[in-house]
Amino acid sequence: MHDASIADAFLAAHPPSVRWAGDCVEIIDQTTLPTSIDVLSLRSVAAVIDAICRLAVRGAPAIGACGALGVVVGLDEAAPTAVTDAMAVIDGLVDRIGNARPTAVNLSWAVARVRDAVVAAMPTSVPGVRNAALAAAEAIMAGDRDACTRIGLYGLDELAGVSRIMTHCNTGRLATAGWGTALGVVYAKAAAGEEVHVYASETRPLLQGARLTAWELHDAGIDVTLMPDGASATAMAQRRVQAVIVGADRITANGDTANKIGTFTHAVNARYAGIPFYVAAPLSTFDPSLPTGDGIVIEERPAVEMREWRGQPTAPPDVAVWNPAFDVTPGELITAIITEAGVLRPPYTESIRAAFAARP
Amino acid sequence: MHDASIADAFLAAHPPSVRWAGDCVEIIDQTTLPTSIDVLSLRSVAAVIDAICRLAVRGAPAIGACGALGVVVGLDEAAPTAVTDAMAVIDGLVDRIGNARPTAVNLSWAVARVRDAVVAAMPTSVPGVRNAALAAAEAIMAGDRDACTRIGLYGLDELAGVSRIMTHCNTGRLATAGWGTALGVVYAKAAAGEEVHVYASETRPLLQGARLTAWELHDAGIDVTLMPDGASATAMAQRRVQAVIVGADRITANGDTANKIGTFTHAVNARYAGIPFYVAAPLSTFDPSLPTGDGIVIEERPAVEMREWRGQPTAPPDVAVWNPAFDVTPGELITAIITEAGVLRPPYTESIRAAFAARP
Repeated sequence: MHDASIADAFLAAHPPSVRWAGDCVEIIDQTTLPTSIDVLSLRSVAAVIDAICRLAVRGAPAIGACGALGVVVGLDEAAPTAVTDAMAVIDGLVDRIGNARPTAVNLSWAVARVRDAVVAAMPTSVPGVRNAALAAAEAIMAGDRDACTRIGLYGLDELAGVSRIMTHCNTGRLATAGWGTALGVVYAKAAAGEEVHVYASETRPLLQGARLTAWELHDAGIDVTLMPDGASATAMAQRRVQAVIVGADRITANGDTANKIGTFTHAVNARYAGIPFYVAAPLSTFDPSLPTGDGIVIEERPAVEMREWRGQPTAPPDVAVWNPAFDVTPGELITAIITEAGVLRPPYTESIRAAFAARP
Repeated sequence: MHDASIADAFLAAHPPSVRWAGDCVEIIDQTTLPTSIDVLSLRSVAAVIDAICRLAVRGAPAIGACGALGVVVGLDEAAPTAVTDAMAVIDGLVDRIGNARPTAVNLSWAVARVRDAVVAAMPTSVPGVRNAALAAAEAIMAGDRDACTRIGLYGLDELAGVSRIMTHCNTGRLATAGWGTALGVVYAKAAAGEEVHVYASETRPLLQGARLTAWELHDAGIDVTLMPDGASATAMAQRRVQAVIVGADRITANGDTANKIGTFTHAVNARYAGIPFYVAAPLSTFDPSLPTGDGIVIEERPAVEMREWRGQPTAPPDVAVWNPAFDVTPGELITAIITEAGVLRPPYTESIRAAFAARP
């Protein structure tokens, strides 16, 4: 296995999509990419939640990072004068930020982890509370960056000999604090000097594949070809791709995986074509409290996302729309789940339980 | 079985999308729908071919009708003075118009049929040639209208008890000279007073499902819900839909079916979900000269269709794009093919051969 230093050049060359800027959260605005690269400064909890809800920041690990930093923004905004007040502020933020979007578990996981870290630090002053919260948020991001690197390394071994890869939505540096999950495997291949060509399905309706994945891979010098979501069966039948690898927003105890709408369709097509279908995700994306995907709340997004594209009509203005943001791929369709703790294989109920039991 | 008069009210209320207007072909411009309903007058062969190539007219039967009428436009434009010259003009038009788009067989079939009808009529004057060509084109349209009606009636029986139907692309009055093929079944259900609710997949990249199917069904008072192409697996798993029905651009001797990109993906998902997958198409869409779908030429469309939507960027301007207009669904995934000559079932090599042998 390669050493984690394989990621160093990539991380040095590509600034994170979410970072703490001293007095605010700075994010790359993912709604205007690839037309322009805008950095937004989020200086209030309302701005943090708005950025999460309108997908200015997206990707399960990235919204976790943004939410965690949002706790510090909320503390600065509330300006409590006593430690007990500060802790009450944090409790309120855990609810408010943690529920901004329902499907990805990383968001609620991250804000709860900030609170738990502050509680554990037993700070004796308000600045102490803030320092503990900021340290916890930074630790979450560092942990995510390292998890992404390790996912890339495990994926490098798992996908040895595979050069033509289909992916869906965006799971790279824009979606995480590191080089990504599914795209982390792609970047790891490139960093190791292996040939890699990515087919990016465009990911309607918000086109994260077209706008974000195509942009960030092209920007990083990786060969990428954009394709319509509906072309997956043909891409597989023609062996344009040898494997599919996607990220995740929530993985239940049996391996059922919530991810961007269209993932389940790709997985069914991979099964029909006899092509392996991988999920790449850190353990923070797992929700072992849910036995199966039936328990995952799927966010439904506004109809306007399907009726217009940047103000240009795409459908009649009054047509009914079904716009689920995510779907749930049954674990039975997933060849393996690549995590920072190794590659988990079926039966997932056992391999996931073992991975959590072995955590430090 | 219902009588064909079931279609009368629909046909009286909805003008055809392609018609002969005395001195030109008139079409509803399908590129500007649903934003505006524009009628284009095509007065030259170049205009006819341009309309076909840029999809101002689309749908296999509709481009067949437009191409057939284009022969009359071409005769008027060339203004031959002798019958032999007129026949030479027609021969040239059969090649030129017939090859404007490669995948749908109806176009080359229709122009060749016009030529054959003129030859058979043995006209003795240039006006006689023109009259025979126009009569042949009108007969093709009348035949298509009747075929659509009969497809609707056969579909009404075949899909008895099915009220929630998924479809892809557009196969209705905009795509044919009648009430459509797959949508003909939907309109027949509505005309028969049956409950019917359509899930229309939007059909990237040109959004024929969103712009055309959603529009024409909504306009006709049919319940329709727009969904992303990638949501098909979920729609089926949740039993939002009970069956899928699509049209076709070319069907080979073994039942392999070329249709809009995304069709094959839906078919694979229907198989996984255990939901029937139907193709509805007139016999003019069949190409028994090809043994399998491997012989079908698939048109690849320009990259700009995936990089922009009405001038608004959807992807980086320089990203590589794979934009196949069609895919080929293997006959093994198709439950039945509904034609004007009845419902064809596997093994298709036999049922298709029998249907052609029984033609009048």
